[in-house]
Amino acid sequence: MSSTFGTLFKVSTFGESHGKGVGAIIDGCPPGMELRAQDIQVQLDRRRPGQSKMATDRQEADQVSILSGVEFDRTLGTPIGLLVANKDQRPGDYGEMDQVPRPSHADYTYQMKYGIRASSGGGRSSARETIGRVAAGAVAEKYLRETCGIEIIAWVSAVGRIEAAGVDSARVTREEVDAHIVRCPDVGAAKAMEDEILQARGEHDSIGGVVSCVCRKVPTGLGEPVFDKLEALLAQAMLSLPASKGFEIGSGFGGARMRGSLHNDPFVRKGERLGTLTNYSGGVQGGISNGEEILFRVAFKPVATIGLAQTTVTMDGREVVLEAKGRHDPCVVPRAVPIVETMTALVLMDLLLRQRSRQVNF
Amino acid sequence: MSSTFGTLFKVSTFGESHGKGVGAIIDGCPPGMELRAQDIQVQLDRRRPGQSKMATDRQEADQVSILSGVEFDRTLGTPIGLLVANKDQRPGDYGEMDQVPRPSHADYTYQMKYGIRASSGGGRSSARETIGRVAAGAVAEKYLRETCGIEIIAWVSAVGRIEAAGVDSARVTREEVDAHIVRCPDVGAAKAMEDEILQARGEHDSIGGVVSCVCRKVPTGLGEPVFDKLEALLAQAMLSLPASKGFEIGSGFGGARMRGSLHNDPFVRKGERLGTLTNYSGGVQGGISNGEEILFRVAFKPVATIGLAQTTVTMDGREVVLEAKGRHDPCVVPRAVPIVETMTALVLMDLLLRQRSRQVNF
Amino acid sequence: MSSTFGTLFKVSTFGESHGKGVGAIIDGCPPGMELRAQDIQVQLDRRRPGQSKMATDRQEADQVSILSGVEFDRTLGTPIGLLVANKDQRPGDYGEMDQVPRPSHADYTYQMKYGIRASSGGGRSSARETIGRVAAGAVAEKYLRETCGIEIIAWVSAVGRIEAAGVDSARVTREEVDAHIVRCPDVGAAKAMEDEILQARGEHDSIGGVVSCVCRKVPTGLGEPVFDKLEALLAQAMLSLPASKGFEIGSGFGGARMRGSLHNDPFVRKGERLGTLTNYSGGVQGGISNGEEILFRVAFKPVATIGLAQTTVTMDGREVVLEAKGRHDPCVVPRAVPIVETMTALVLMDLLLRQRSRQVNF
Amino acid sequence: MSSTFGTLFKVSTFGESHGKGVGAIIDGCPPGMELRAQDIQVQLDRRRPGQSKMATDRQEADQVSILSGVEFDRTLGTPIGLLVANKDQRPGDYGEMDQVPRPSHADYTYQMKYGIRASSGGGRSSARETIGRVAAGAVAEKYLRETCGIEIIAWVSAVGRIEAAGVDSARVTREEVDAHIVRCPDVGAAKAMEDEILQARGEHDSIGGVVSCVCRKVPTGLGEPVFDKLEALLAQAMLSLPASKGFEIGSGFGGARMRGSLHNDPFVRKGERLGTLTNYSGGVQGGISNGEEILFRVAFKPVATIGLAQTTVTMDGREVVLEAKGRHDPCVVPRAVPIVETMTALVLMDLLLRQRSRQVNF
Repeated sequence: MSSTFGTLFKVSTFGESHGKGVGAIIDGCPPGMELRAQDIQVQLDRRRPGQSKMATDRQEADQVSILSGVEFDRTLGTPIGLLVANKDQRPGDYGEMDQVPRPSHADYTYQMKYGIRASSGGGRSSARETIGRVAAGAVAEKYLRETCGIEIIAWVSAVGRIEAAGVDSARVTREEVDAHIVRCPDVGAAKAMEDEILQARGEHDSIGGVVSCVCRKVPTGLGEPVFDKLEALLAQAMLSLPASKGFEIGSGFGGARMRGSLHNDPFVRKGERLGTLTNYSGGVQGGISNGEEILFRVAFKPVATIGLAQTTVTMDGREVVLEAKGRHDPCVVPRAVPIVETMTALVLMDLLLRQRSRQVNF
Repeated sequence: MSSTFGTLFKVSTFGESHGKGVGAIIDGCPPGMELRAQDIQVQLDRRRPGQSKMATDRQEADQVSILSGVEFDRTLGTPIGLLVANKDQRPGDYGEMDQVPRPSHADYTYQMKYGIRASSGGGRSSARETIGRVAAGAVAEKYLRETCGIEIIAWVSAVGRIEAAGVDSARVTREEVDAHIVRCPDVGAAKAMEDEILQARGEHDSIGGVVSCVCRKVPTGLGEPVFDKLEALLAQAMLSLPASKGFEIGSGFGGARMRGSLHNDPFVRKGERLGTLTNYSGGVQGGISNGEEILFRVAFKPVATIGLAQTTVTMDGREVVLEAKGRHDPCVVPRAVPIVETMTALVLMDLLLRQRSRQVNF
Repeated sequence: MSSTFGTLFKVSTFGESHGKGVGAIIDGCPPGMELRAQDIQVQLDRRRPGQSKMATDRQEADQVSILSGVEFDRTLGTPIGLLVANKDQRPGDYGEMDQVPRPSHADYTYQMKYGIRASSGGGRSSARETIGRVAAGAVAEKYLRETCGIEIIAWVSAVGRIEAAGVDSARVTREEVDAHIVRCPDVGAAKAMEDEILQARGEHDSIGGVVSCVCRKVPTGLGEPVFDKLEALLAQAMLSLPASKGFEIGSGFGGARMRGSLHNDPFVRKGERLGTLTNYSGGVQGGISNGEEILFRVAFKPVATIGLAQTTVTMDGREVVLEAKGRHDPCVVPRAVPIVETMTALVLMDLLLRQRSRQVNF
Repeated sequence: MSSTFGTLFKVSTFGESHGKGVGAIIDGCPPGMELRAQDIQVQLDRRRPGQSKMATDRQEADQVSILSGVEFDRTLGTPIGLLVANKDQRPGDYGEMDQVPRPSHADYTYQMKYGIRASSGGGRSSARETIGRVAAGAVAEKYLRETCGIEIIAWVSAVGRIEAAGVDSARVTREEVDAHIVRCPDVGAAKAMEDEILQARGEHDSIGGVVSCVCRKVPTGLGEPVFDKLEALLAQAMLSLPASKGFEIGSGFGGARMRGSLHNDPFVRKGERLGTLTNYSGGVQGGISNGEEILFRVAFKPVATIGLAQTTVTMDGREVVLEAKGRHDPCVVPRAVPIVETMTALVLMDLLLRQRSRQVNF
């Protein structure tokens, strides 16, 4: 298991879905920043299930507690311990599922890798695991915003075959994103996406989607070629999220179909600095931010837990029919929005500190 | 700069395109494996430019020399130093380009990040940088093949709008891939791709493409949730490659349009082990290999160096028209095939060693 | 701040002395080991202050809670979260000391490094910080004992000028160590040490000492040359302990006065394996364990908090006389015994997992 | 094997004693520093054997070549490759020794750990391995000197029972150190040390010694508690050196015998900053530099290779008498002086970059 992320802003997460709690330690947060639990709670609340009829109804307050690293609402430069207690502690609850690895869940692979697995709810592979990341990422996000003015805004750009259009990455705000429950700022598409999700739910099924993200006002120079290029760490961060299946930056897979004469972003003067006329690069050249918007998209598969009956086999190979009980979130992407934002913040924060160590004049 | 990759099989690469040479140190290769320079040379030769009329004509022999870590053709367990001399050492050669950051190259971002940059040829952002990775990855590949039987096969699955069809990931061989110069085992598509590339070349332009990759016989249990999930490290590895813009595994972006009832991979008995009936997961569940084929795709943008005139600005903002001289590779994907394979080997190798450290019975 | 230790058995600690609590996350503990809070509590109890008239009287129960990574008393292979609540939460309590950096404490350096520091009790530089290490190290110790039979026994070998003699490293037990309150298994020396400590206490002063440690039944082959040699990581681990000033292994500083003909440890047959006749090497050759006892010593300075008046200056340079109030531990070494043992376990545990990843036959 | 050191200024070394060469890659050197091979050569020349009648007579030019990362004598911020060719390539030369693990060498432990070892000269456990460190450390040293004025001076403070006295750490210069062949600036002691070494040599024996080191003008604030405290990383660095057996900082083992009232370093005003009246702390408090001199000592055992006959056993347990042929260095400490200095530079350099990343005002 590798639950640690980052070189200088190092985050270690912990916690199973039905154990005592989940959380994170941030080792390397700069000292002197104002920080209150509420600053973190904002993103945890956006991540929380049970916000709507479309999401699972399980009520989880997910209140974060700061265990260390902060005194009189100011960071000390020491490790920041963050803990969210689980209200729903019930080892062994799922019962029969223990014998049947759920299709497209991690039950089978955890069992094969570790020879043991949490008795219920997915344990560490559960979506609850992301709470530690979101909490830590909210701290990074605050720092980036206050020291550099960096804005990180994600939104749902597709649900199933419904795609958003007309989202202006230069201006979209978190308020616009949150205005509709599916977190798509394209109002027309949002309504269609809601219908799509409700229909999937009605059919005891689930549906996939895409989250887009823009980072604005990122200073030029972030990214550590060659292995820790900005887009490489973003890709790692995004593919480490539960249910994600793809990542693309700038032109992405569409760029593979283009000619260089169109794809190249010519430089132009933008006030005091150079900018580019187009942005097929997605704000990154040679693995380093170029001062333009960083733009990327993340694909999420449909949630694996569905009410429909599925024919599968038990650990010892006997065929069975599996039918999930209870209510489950039919589409993960609305809740993935704050997760994508905070993971992005973890990437940018670490790269900012790494770049800062370099700045000296001879 | 972060030119080190891996936790236990740790690779550090070095070298600019027009300096003395490029290479890598592998720290952590297991002892006792037979290894000769020729084992590494095979993949370097496949990566080498100048293999055809479609590629750049620059002749670079790229002969690798093993500096350390091997004695009497056997690895010692100590760091393996690998060096490929540059035949083409010409600092300052590109001349006027120094003042003009080439569009969609890394000239501008390197200059802004480091306050200095190599005087010619892209330096560390050049495609020559990949030589160190390919050399190190060839060592990993040999180890994986000999100890686990792992097969890693990549091929060109798209050039521009031409897409390959009918490639059987379960059977495709490296010989089939190399049978055609574009490295597409779908013979009909290969011919169309060749035409597409030659047409771009004729128009002094370049064209993007997609590389697909399959890993067969990967043991169950590789991948370190949560941040070093198998797909997360693959995504980092692929997005760290020059010119790559996207990564998807299994169903990828297509999965975002699917219903869970279709996307879920039911378990079935496959001889002694469990397998899955479908493989939308791409061989990975919860970030851990499940014993099925690992299948992913990487999008590459069109090469930024083109012969067509481009209007851009100098570092101090004056408008100029830039026109690349000499012959340049109009499409990177055929040569990207061995690069994708060897980077994949680096990921699997490190995860194999990490998983091995865990195996103990109580 | 760098509160993370280890490559595969990775421990991240957190917590200030007067905040909500202290603890650790272990990322990388092998799955399947039986583990209960009580297994950890044993070493925390030995570390706890207030065990005798010689130690500080502050009562701190230091009960550990396992937050994650264990289910039905068995490790899952996922991160193990460990938390010890602070009973003594009093930010700002020390009052006037805020203006006066205490001599030979870390008040001044923390302030200069971070621009801020915990308002009381040393914060992260307090001895309470070691709780996280001891808790994590107790888990490692259990694993090493149960899978390899490794025994790690530390004891007080000097207090001031009183030195222990006649401790047989091959046979000394933890019971013998704990038989006397100063944790010196040499009964005569123990009594003299106790007198020395009580005398220092009576004079409102403090006294330094030395802790010796033996590791028995360590398998041959642990240690990762060249930078992570076994003795190098032990040295790092020991010098990272509060108040430690020196480390020596085997012959140590005494070895610098010796001739090679005496110092060399000739090989002899010991049953099935080779051993050495003497052990000036301290169980390590070339940075790798050789199967003999690993023997080292750690020097601890006298505790910096003393009741005697000290003339010093405030942060802005005014001369003041400082006199510590309350009762303080006049000698740290008896409580350092379990800390040295558990830090040693962290080093050996990580090296064991690293070595295990290497073992394969061609 | 772990041949990588540092977090931001990351050094990876490679090379066996009788292979093609030895060297290092520095990943993370700040850009823009002037650097020529000669800057590095100075310390390599001081490390080189064959400088005197006391050292081994083997002539090794040890000329360093800069492979990458530097253009027009200026660092690019990219990995700096450093290579020193071996003139003495003779695998298999030592012959009979292959069957007989030399006492107190690493032959036995390498064989047990890796199942294979270099056929001659110690391979990676040879003193030649330090060339990579010295070369990389010389780069760090130059940076520290030019950007912060840091001075790192080591000297021989003991050979056998002869100890130097009257070395003023505040003023000692490298010229004074190099004035005498044993590198002890105490002229009287130097002569006695020389005699001691020659006597050992005459008796086909070897002798140990101690190297002391002072770092002057180190800025306040370097060191990353808790595990990467300045003294902890120094201890790791020093104990990673071949033949080292002990490390102490400030009062060291002597501090264990002291009372707190004497050992505490009272603060006093020193111009604009606070300083301490005494320096038993050795320039470090709480793991962080306090602006005073950093003072430490490293113990080295007598060289294991001696001409005197030794009774030992073969790998399969047969008793044999071993007698080293050829001329060998009877005392390692004069040559250890530049090694200690450059390893110290690696530690300080990495900590400087890490601290720099933190500096921001809110």
